[in-house]
Amino acid sequence: MNSKGRLYGIGVGPGDPELLTLKALRLLRSASVIAYQSATDRESIARKIVSSYLPGNQVEVSYHLPRALEPEKAKSVYDQEIEPINEHLAAGRDVVVLCEGDPFFYGSFMYIFTRLSHQYQTEVVPGISSLMACPVSLGVPFTYYNDILTVLPATLPTEMLISQLLATDAAAIMKLGRHFAKVRDVLHQLGLQSRARYIERATTTEQRILPLDEVKPEEVPYFSMIVIPTIQRL
Amino acid sequence: MNSKGRLYGIGVGPGDPELLTLKALRLLRSASVIAYQSATDRESIARKIVSSYLPGNQVEVSYHLPRALEPEKAKSVYDQEIEPINEHLAAGRDVVVLCEGDPFFYGSFMYIFTRLSHQYQTEVVPGISSLMACPVSLGVPFTYYNDILTVLPATLPTEMLISQLLATDAAAIMKLGRHFAKVRDVLHQLGLQSRARYIERATTTEQRILPLDEVKPEEVPYFSMIVIPTIQRL
Repeated sequence: MNSKGRLYGIGVGPGDPELLTLKALRLLRSASVIAYQSATDRESIARKIVSSYLPGNQVEVSYHLPRALEPEKAKSVYDQEIEPINEHLAAGRDVVVLCEGDPFFYGSFMYIFTRLSHQYQTEVVPGISSLMACPVSLGVPFTYYNDILTVLPATLPTEMLISQLLATDAAAIMKLGRHFAKVRDVLHQLGLQSRARYIERATTTEQRILPLDEVKPEEVPYFSMIVIPTIQRL
Repeated sequence: MNSKGRLYGIGVGPGDPELLTLKALRLLRSASVIAYQSATDRESIARKIVSSYLPGNQVEVSYHLPRALEPEKAKSVYDQEIEPINEHLAAGRDVVVLCEGDPFFYGSFMYIFTRLSHQYQTEVVPGISSLMACPVSLGVPFTYYNDILTVLPATLPTEMLISQLLATDAAAIMKLGRHFAKVRDVLHQLGLQSRARYIERATTTEQRILPLDEVKPEEVPYFSMIVIPTIQRL
């Protein structure tokens, strides 16, 4: 008899609670423990997305996997943060980890998966990524037929952004934040400024769409994207 | 008073009916007409995915937008194929177009959107793309933190595949079909054969996962993907 709990990583989508999948909703309601990433001073975004679906009798666990740590330091902090999830599973309780967007696409769940999926029965449910939600919210068909699509973090150096953008048909530039001005300048340099579309907090009640040159660089949040759709052919 | 129908394009995901979103399910059930792409001799994949949810009293319209036509020819064929949808909308009936995966991500819905969204109130619902579903089904975390991800159609020439793969952290190679052997050889040439993971018909009851070198090139379907996850760091 296996008395261990099961681990679930479920994508909860980009923000609109109705963009949860039927499978994610079923698993969310079935577990005795839910877990989510949460910076110490902020409400968890993933929890907020699903809050109206919670049955109200679940144990909640939050963890915080900070960025920008030395690899050795990060490993030990991550191990420590994930330990409460491990303890619930070891005690036989199923744990559903809520993941903004999709669990395996730039998600913090992957650090949990790599640490615990060998020990516990694990199931992952894909979610609607901002990569799909942003073009839809902008109303721009994104990639056709045999296009190349490149997903670029805004943190890349200017030269790398340029070479990547020159080699692709369509692109999404993510995690703009304080890197916005650099990206905007690159797009002007390449003549892409009129094709590029800016959106922040897509599908949430705070969604904003702005022309590229009206965006104030100092106000750009982390949850923002520039979408460069392919050139329409037919 | 506006007596025109409304146009909806809803992503129905990669194959598992439970990967529909709550929003897609609500709209699917609300329309009097559903439309889907269907080659003349085959069942529509998108319709099959949602078949258990259909209320049974909807008008159904199928269309076929063939690939590999001359642009001028394609335009006129597509106009013609889409005309029945236009007629339902003009007559005041809401039409839900079913889209495999996500509507704006390599989808046939985009040809409908560009033709009809200016005339009719239109709403698009993002769906789970194979780009998210395949890594999850393979059990491989895909992209971390500041990775570059490139989505490549297998139709690209060898030299282009090589230069793109050398410039990225993670990649998905789609639409393998008869191009599989070329792609496999490129992956060997670049030493990527052990990182590359092959999957076909992800999340459906016919899903298959095979080691790269056990795939028989002549059996590879269009709905297949090679996922090259980033190298795990933490």
